[in-house]
Formats: sequence, structure tokens, C-alpha cells
Amino acid sequence: MTRYALTLEYDGRPFMGWQRQDHGPSVQEAVETAIEKMTGESAVVHAAGRTDAGVHALAMRAHVELQRTPTPFRLMEALNALLRPNPVAVLGCEIVPDDWHARFSCVGRAYEYRIVNRRSPLTWEAGLAWRVPTDLDAETMHVAAQRLVGRHDFTTFRSAHCQSESAVKTLDRLDVYREGDRVRIVAEARSFLHHQVRSMVGCLALVGQGKWSADDLSEALEARDRAALGFNAPPDGLYFTGARYP
Amino acid sequence: MTRYALTLEYDGRPFMGWQRQDHGPSVQEAVETAIEKMTGESAVVHAAGRTDAGVHALAMRAHVELQRTPTPFRLMEALNALLRPNPVAVLGCEIVPDDWHARFSCVGRAYEYRIVNRRSPLTWEAGLAWRVPTDLDAETMHVAAQRLVGRHDFTTFRSAHCQSESAVKTLDRLDVYREGDRVRIVAEARSFLHHQVRSMVGCLALVGQGKWSADDLSEALEARDRAALGFNAPPDGLYFTGARYP
Repeated sequence: MTRYALTLEYDGRPFMGWQRQDHGPSVQEAVETAIEKMTGESAVVHAAGRTDAGVHALAMRAHVELQRTPTPFRLMEALNALLRPNPVAVLGCEIVPDDWHARFSCVGRAYEYRIVNRRSPLTWEAGLAWRVPTDLDAETMHVAAQRLVGRHDFTTFRSAHCQSESAVKTLDRLDVYREGDRVRIVAEARSFLHHQVRSMVGCLALVGQGKWSADDLSEALEARDRAALGFNAPPDGLYFTGARYP
Repeated sequence: MTRYALTLEYDGRPFMGWQRQDHGPSVQEAVETAIEKMTGESAVVHAAGRTDAGVHALAMRAHVELQRTPTPFRLMEALNALLRPNPVAVLGCEIVPDDWHARFSCVGRAYEYRIVNRRSPLTWEAGLAWRVPTDLDAETMHVAAQRLVGRHDFTTFRSAHCQSESAVKTLDRLDVYREGDRVRIVAEARSFLHHQVRSMVGCLALVGQGKWSADDLSEALEARDRAALGFNAPPDGLYFTGARYP
């Protein structure tokens, strides 16, 4: 058996999320189907992160183990041809050791959240960003965001469906930038809870609109209670941007 | 009659172009229909540039004259509501003097062309950028592009359907930048010929791939012959980004 690591880009709009589902299309199913078409093997593809419905990836990392041994370039080319018309692309492919696991070997994950801060509806970015019509103060959001950086119990920012054993996570980075009418939020951690980034972004938007203070954000964190969550941002603006390995 | 200037953003993918057509949807028709729904007036909307099928706009300028006199804010809000589900948004609206004409008063137009320079197919950017799979040398493209800046007869870079009286135009700016795997080309002029930006970008891509030298580009320009054109880039990557008025 040969283990291949894949770097994947995908548009989350038509999918129920990364994970294979009975009730609709998933990125995992699209990739596994392409692999089966090429190799005849029904192999399971494991990803660094299981993104939700509507969430995108610029560089998801995944792996698959195959009995056939195409060159990485040949595998990448064939998958890109067979994945059509799904909006999923293989950006990179390499052979990795048998103990390399896209999910369990991963020591860092990065997300970017894209907000378009304007009154007018989105056109070509519909489903690719979150439109916030009221003015956001990105600097105030950035300062407040630092209250969430570090090791905390993130129960408030965790979905009811979260399967993680512990809600205690270490958030390494939460930066907020404004570029014209765009507000970009970059989050990095070893791992995230289900809905954590969207929940943090939703609350930061409240801070940016002046509806919450930084102290309100701290209080929400300390409450360790989902009911203390201010707002869960939509999946549209969320991109998985990278996974780090030792 | 009150004259309103509009700033429009649109996704060109579902449209046959700006201009009203018998055989399919146009941006002009979408905006005029929304105006009629709001005011009951069948007014003509004039734009600074008549973009082709599949070409996008980040800030197209247009005007319309109405008998009813809503406030600019009210007009913008109503049009944005009535334009749905068309991917067209009004970003700005203001009252302008009766002699202000979106097309004839315009003294400068700007376009941006977006290339994704990679082998893998596009996902969320399909139809929003031109994917060029072979390596582009953006610096060489930028240097060669300067051969086209200035006052020239651009017959080579003009579509057979161009309605301009003269092919002599002054190109003020043609800059090529690389940002990661993206190559961005910015073009500015008082006015452009039909297909001029796409034709220039197509030839610059040949230069970037090493298939053409800067001298080949100069020769194509000097030939003043459409047959000397190297390549016409697809509409996907083209964005109308701004119009300038005195």
C-alpha cells in the first residue's frame, strides 16, 4: 500500500461539508468517487479538518492509501480530470510515510474568514463571503480578539454537535485586518472545536458594530455556556487555509 | 427629469454582456427592469463601458433619467431589492447635472485582468479568472507591456465587431503584477477598443510563457492587422474597475 497526501481546494457551496453524508453531496464523496474511477479501489480519504456545509478550502490536506502506485503527478492529473464538474481541485500530491495521517499527524490548522462590510448585496462573491451591512471597527475587533488567544475553555464557542472530548483548546492567533471594505480574520490553532471560528467571528462582529465591548467578549468566554454566544457567523466566509505537520 | 449616476458591481457569468440583447439576459436589461418595477418608467440606462458576455464589473458607472425623484439612497435600496436574484448590485447612487453622461463625459476607464497561474482547475473562481497552466514570467510581461503604452494604432488588438471610428488610442497604463500564483494586469486609458484588453492580455501571456519576445509584441502592434494577434484572452478574468470624470 502506498500513502498519498493531497492538497485540496474546494468551493463549499454545493456540498453538505467535507464528510460523507447520506442526504447530500460531500467533498469526501467527490474525491473518493474520483479515486475509485481511476484505480478501481474504494479507499477512504481522511482530511485534516471536517469543514461544514458551505465552508470552503484553499489548502485542505488529506491522505489516501492505495494498492496501485501511480506517480503523484499522474494521480493529481487524473483526479483533477475525474473530479469535474465538482468544484474540487487537487493542488498538490506527494507520497508520505505509512504513519503520516492528515488528521492525527496535524499539529496546526489555519482558517481565514472573509467579511464584505457594505450595505449592497454581494454579486460574484455570494456564498464566498459574509456581507455585514453596518460599519465594523476592525481595529477594535482585533484588540478584543486577543482576549480569546491562549488556552481557554471554549464551550461558549462550540456547537452542540461538537464531538471533541475537551472544550479546552489553545488559540494561537486571531487577527483582524481591514482592506478597503473587506475585513479578514485569520485564526490559527492546533485544533478547533466545531463552529469555533464562526462563533468567534460572530461575536467579534458584535464588537465591531459596537454592540459588544471587549469585556462582553471575555464574559461570554468565561461563561462557558453556549447560551452566552452572541452570534454564529454564516459558513459563507469561512476558508480552511492550511494544515501544519511536524 | 432628474439624472442619477449609479455605481454598479456585477458578475458577468450569467449575462450576454452589458448591452440589451434579443437572444439572452443582459446587465442593462436587469437594471432597466428593476427601475421600471420601482418607478413605472421605462428608462434607458447608459453605462461608461459596454462589457462583453462573461466580463465582470467592480465599479461600472451608469446613469438614468427619471421623472419620479426618489432620494439617491431610496433609489439604491429599492434597486438592490428589485435586482434580486440577478448578481448585480448598486454600490452608489447620486444626483448629477443634466449634462453628465456616464459614457460621453467619461475621460478615463480602468480594467483589471485576473490570471490564476497554476496547473490545477479553478474551483470557486471558475468563470472569475483565467487559468494559465504554464509558468508566466510576470516581470518580463510587465516590461514588454510598456511597448503598448502610449498613443498607437491598436488595429491588431481590436475585434472585427469594433464600432470605434478610429483604432488610434492612447493607453495610459498597462502594469503586470505577480502575487503568489496570481498574475494581475491593470489597464487604463481614456477609452478602449472592443476586445482590446483581452487581446493585449492574450499576447502578454505568450510573452510570459516565452513564446513571444517583447519585439514580437511590438511587431504585432506595428502590423496593424488583426491576423497578427497572438491570442485573445477569455472574458472570465476581465473586470471593469472604474470610470473617471472631470
